[in-house]
Amino acid sequence: MIDTSFLKRNNKVLLLAYDQGFEHGPTDFNEKNVDPEYILDIARKSDVFTGIIFHEGIAESYYLPAKDKVPLILKLNGKTSLHPDAEPYSPQLCSVSEAVRLGAQAVGYTIYIGSEHEAMMMKEFSAIEDEAHKANLPIILWAYPRGKTVAGKENSREILSYAARLALELGADFVKLPYTGDPESYAWVVKAAGKTGVLVQGGSKTKEQDFLKEIQDCLHAGVAGFAIGRNIWQSDNPIELAKKIAHIVYE
Amino acid sequence: MIDTSFLKRNNKVLLLAYDQGFEHGPTDFNEKNVDPEYILDIARKSDVFTGIIFHEGIAESYYLPAKDKVPLILKLNGKTSLHPDAEPYSPQLCSVSEAVRLGAQAVGYTIYIGSEHEAMMMKEFSAIEDEAHKANLPIILWAYPRGKTVAGKENSREILSYAARLALELGADFVKLPYTGDPESYAWVVKAAGKTGVLVQGGSKTKEQDFLKEIQDCLHAGVAGFAIGRNIWQSDNPIELAKKIAHIVYE
Amino acid sequence: MIDTSFLKRNNKVLLLAYDQGFEHGPTDFNEKNVDPEYILDIARKSDVFTGIIFHEGIAESYYLPAKDKVPLILKLNGKTSLHPDAEPYSPQLCSVSEAVRLGAQAVGYTIYIGSEHEAMMMKEFSAIEDEAHKANLPIILWAYPRGKTVAGKENSREILSYAARLALELGADFVKLPYTGDPESYAWVVKAAGKTGVLVQGGSKTKEQDFLKEIQDCLHAGVAGFAIGRNIWQSDNPIELAKKIAHIVYE
Amino acid sequence: MIDTSFLKRNNKVLLLAYDQGFEHGPTDFNEKNVDPEYILDIARKSDVFTGIIFHEGIAESYYLPAKDKVPLILKLNGKTSLHPDAEPYSPQLCSVSEAVRLGAQAVGYTIYIGSEHEAMMMKEFSAIEDEAHKANLPIILWAYPRGKTVAGKENSREILSYAARLALELGADFVKLPYTGDPESYAWVVKAAGKTGVLVQGGSKTKEQDFLKEIQDCLHAGVAGFAIGRNIWQSDNPIELAKKIAHIVYE
Amino acid sequence: MIDTSFLKRNNKVLLLAYDQGFEHGPTDFNEKNVDPEYILDIARKSDVFTGIIFHEGIAESYYLPAKDKVPLILKLNGKTSLHPDAEPYSPQLCSVSEAVRLGAQAVGYTIYIGSEHEAMMMKEFSAIEDEAHKANLPIILWAYPRGKTVAGKENSREILSYAARLALELGADFVKLPYTGDPESYAWVVKAAGKTGVLVQGGSKTKEQDFLKEIQDCLHAGVAGFAIGRNIWQSDNPIELAKKIAHIVYE
Repeated sequence: MIDTSFLKRNNKVLLLAYDQGFEHGPTDFNEKNVDPEYILDIARKSDVFTGIIFHEGIAESYYLPAKDKVPLILKLNGKTSLHPDAEPYSPQLCSVSEAVRLGAQAVGYTIYIGSEHEAMMMKEFSAIEDEAHKANLPIILWAYPRGKTVAGKENSREILSYAARLALELGADFVKLPYTGDPESYAWVVKAAGKTGVLVQGGSKTKEQDFLKEIQDCLHAGVAGFAIGRNIWQSDNPIELAKKIAHIVYE
Repeated sequence: MIDTSFLKRNNKVLLLAYDQGFEHGPTDFNEKNVDPEYILDIARKSDVFTGIIFHEGIAESYYLPAKDKVPLILKLNGKTSLHPDAEPYSPQLCSVSEAVRLGAQAVGYTIYIGSEHEAMMMKEFSAIEDEAHKANLPIILWAYPRGKTVAGKENSREILSYAARLALELGADFVKLPYTGDPESYAWVVKAAGKTGVLVQGGSKTKEQDFLKEIQDCLHAGVAGFAIGRNIWQSDNPIELAKKIAHIVYE
Repeated sequence: MIDTSFLKRNNKVLLLAYDQGFEHGPTDFNEKNVDPEYILDIARKSDVFTGIIFHEGIAESYYLPAKDKVPLILKLNGKTSLHPDAEPYSPQLCSVSEAVRLGAQAVGYTIYIGSEHEAMMMKEFSAIEDEAHKANLPIILWAYPRGKTVAGKENSREILSYAARLALELGADFVKLPYTGDPESYAWVVKAAGKTGVLVQGGSKTKEQDFLKEIQDCLHAGVAGFAIGRNIWQSDNPIELAKKIAHIVYE
Repeated sequence: MIDTSFLKRNNKVLLLAYDQGFEHGPTDFNEKNVDPEYILDIARKSDVFTGIIFHEGIAESYYLPAKDKVPLILKLNGKTSLHPDAEPYSPQLCSVSEAVRLGAQAVGYTIYIGSEHEAMMMKEFSAIEDEAHKANLPIILWAYPRGKTVAGKENSREILSYAARLALELGADFVKLPYTGDPESYAWVVKAAGKTGVLVQGGSKTKEQDFLKEIQDCLHAGVAGFAIGRNIWQSDNPIELAKKIAHIVYE
Repeated sequence: MIDTSFLKRNNKVLLLAYDQGFEHGPTDFNEKNVDPEYILDIARKSDVFTGIIFHEGIAESYYLPAKDKVPLILKLNGKTSLHPDAEPYSPQLCSVSEAVRLGAQAVGYTIYIGSEHEAMMMKEFSAIEDEAHKANLPIILWAYPRGKTVAGKENSREILSYAARLALELGADFVKLPYTGDPESYAWVVKAAGKTGVLVQGGSKTKEQDFLKEIQDCLHAGVAGFAIGRNIWQSDNPIELAKKIAHIVYE
């Protein structure tokens, strides 16, 4: 298996996610966090993240010329929110070799598990996975349940354990997943993923105390780490919060 | 023709199948058999299987680093059960060269015979078959009747003999098929397959005595062997059962 | 133009067709003719055929290892009869280079003239034709009228002369066609084909006398030869019948 | 720009078109002109044509072995008339390199301007144009308005000037177009085409006097030449008529 | 990041756009401006433009042989206006390497943001962007909101800031956008684009005073420059107007 230790501190992964500008548009942003430099600054000053997630353009314009930067996870596909597609597809927009040129040390790709276009995304993921592993890059699968056959079950034990298992069967090093809501069911999700590490997604902005409690619960379920975006950079005190989270995750 | 003797003992094939995590999700699993190490252990301790079937990810994380292991048959395509597609398609997710890198000595691919997407799967199979034979790897065709034109006839002599014949015409070394239910009709299926060996699929968990009887009947029909999964690793005594089966198959 | 003399005796072509296992399934077969060895044996013992038609798998398992064999025409595409498609498509399943590896001296490909998928098959045929001619292999076009726009006119002078002309315009060395039913109209079909030789298909089993009469009529119309399957190998005396046919064709 | 002087006499282009066997079938032919040799003979004996238009198969079987022949324009795509497609697509069936092998000195490709499949044909044309120009071959765009959005306006000043402009914007050396019906509007079409030369298509058989008058009018509008088929080879005196036309065009 | 200084004067970009012949047809033209030489002449005599925008064919026939010419931005995709597609797609029609051969120093590509075919265009853009940047060519994204999900919001702050952001995330050096109508909202659009420079499109012919006012407003919002076509070359005094605009932009 690929070495992933460079993405870990005290054996846990903590990623700063900033792919929302593509996925949601600037609606998530204010005058500060619309600027990728602000995000790089949070990572630099908090010094708790083991990686940062960007799309290609921001990697090229902001990450590549930056100094003192954490490892880059380049997100290789993306989809705008302009279409409320019941059965979404997210196209590959960057190659592994281009990611490497931009300084990426790992890559990410979304499969909408359950979507009618699932097969097309699985094909793209599989080709990327081969290429990434040949280049010694870990690959993280964003495995998000979507589509009418899983509607209403996007956070269920049944569907999330299936998503986790697919990540393992497909050869992902990590799988980024939503949380089921309770540690017991999530332990089964973690088990189904086998040697593939489960990374919990941060999701939309939540009350701090609830958010920190969820992190604790996930750790009890055995997850490998977290990928957090809005809860950090929409916070009024992102650096302080990042350190609080790190304290729990790395303890 | 490709040498397939390394997949045989006493001229019969007996494969341990573990591609269900992809096809059905963890619903088939319990706390023990959710772990691929448990499956490798059954193969090792029973010492009766001539091959083991995994998808790419499990091959990479579990099979490749393992010791004392039986030959690997890498399943190159897969489909989740999240869509109850009347006309299913199973996309190719791993190349032959990647399979070789992971230690595979044979490859497998599913064509849903009768599905509207049959042509697309036949094309993918044919390209894989060329590549596999160039690399001296046998190829097993999973030939499963599906789709509204064959609905209700999935186990019929007519459709299964057609599926078996297609395997021969397409150049498969083996064809994995359901059982018709009686040895006489199955003898015609075996005959239609010509030099392509018929491997009977184990299917869902069955009462032991019935299962062993079916194996006997299939042998009388002239099959080349069996690919068994759930009936083994869902058993309380998988090693003991594996040995019983082997006793019948290899005798 | 490509040399095709090796496919001729006394300037006529007589092919033994055995692609029905793919196209119709084993329903055309009995215990004898289900076995490709039986077909090779007819060719060997009758010693009247200038070529034999197989799909890839049978070529690999039976033709390649055989001795004293007639030239192989490898059929490169195929379609099952499981779908009663009004507008059929027959996918390419074998490359020219693979055909050469299996010992083929010519290749064949079906275009369903008039089908909505005609363009896709014309594209595949054209690429194959280039490759075949570069490798000095003749190519035979199976030109079968299908689809609602030609329904009821599949054997008409108008449609078959168009099919024959397309074979010429597309660069086929031979075109395999149904018979119009009378020599006069068929002479126009032959004329429209120009330097592309017309091969009449045998079709389903017919009364011997009628069948031999049809061969005579076609020869009067100026055809280049015949591709016969079921009428030979479904016969109780295939070798005797083959010789009778040859006597008429080569006289 | 590519040298096109070899396609001109006295600065005008006069092509003998014979792609109708593909596009319309043998319905356009009689016992004489069904034979490509007859067409080559008209070109040879009249000695007025600056080029001849064939599809790949006729180029290979008739043009390539012929002597004393005029430059070949190989038509790279084609479509049968078996489908009355409201929104037609004409697939590429021959590559530029294959055309060169067959002796072509220029290539042609049809885009059905206005068809729903316009984008696909523009893509194919653009790739061919690059390849042709790299090989120093001029390319002629058959720009035929089709589809429901242009229905009834196929000969209008508005649509034909757009078609002519697209030929220029796409990099065609010549554009083959229908006639608007009057020289004034056609002068605008010629102007919109800029440095791309307009070639008027001959169309179906017309009364001789009307046909010669139309040629005169088109010349007044500034066209670069003509591509004429049926009006020549369906004529009882094709050589005589060809000379009359040439007299007008080259004077 | 790619050097773009050669497209700037006093740190601003001012492009002369002439891709309307493809997009709208000759309906935008009169006897003068139908001629690409006229456009090149405006650029030459006004001496204020930092680049000129052509499609491939005009680049080959007019730009390449011209002298004293401004940098060429080759527009790589295009779409006719013959289809009033609610969900438009604009196909790639020229490669980056072909653009370079024609003398291009930058390339352009349109994505219809919001169209159902958005994913296909994003894929094409991304491949072009990689190739362009490897060749050290800047790439300009034409980001035009289209499709039923953005209908009526094509000039809104929300949608245009999303379009601008996508240009940044996708790696475009510049993004060509419509104007929102007021400088305040446009400042947010400019901010969302980050290091990607916003170029305002000129649009259809407008009263001169209003047009110059809009340019002022856009400059206040922080745009990188302008791409203007019809307002210049449909003007009776294009050179004079070009100089007026330049005076504002470069001051």
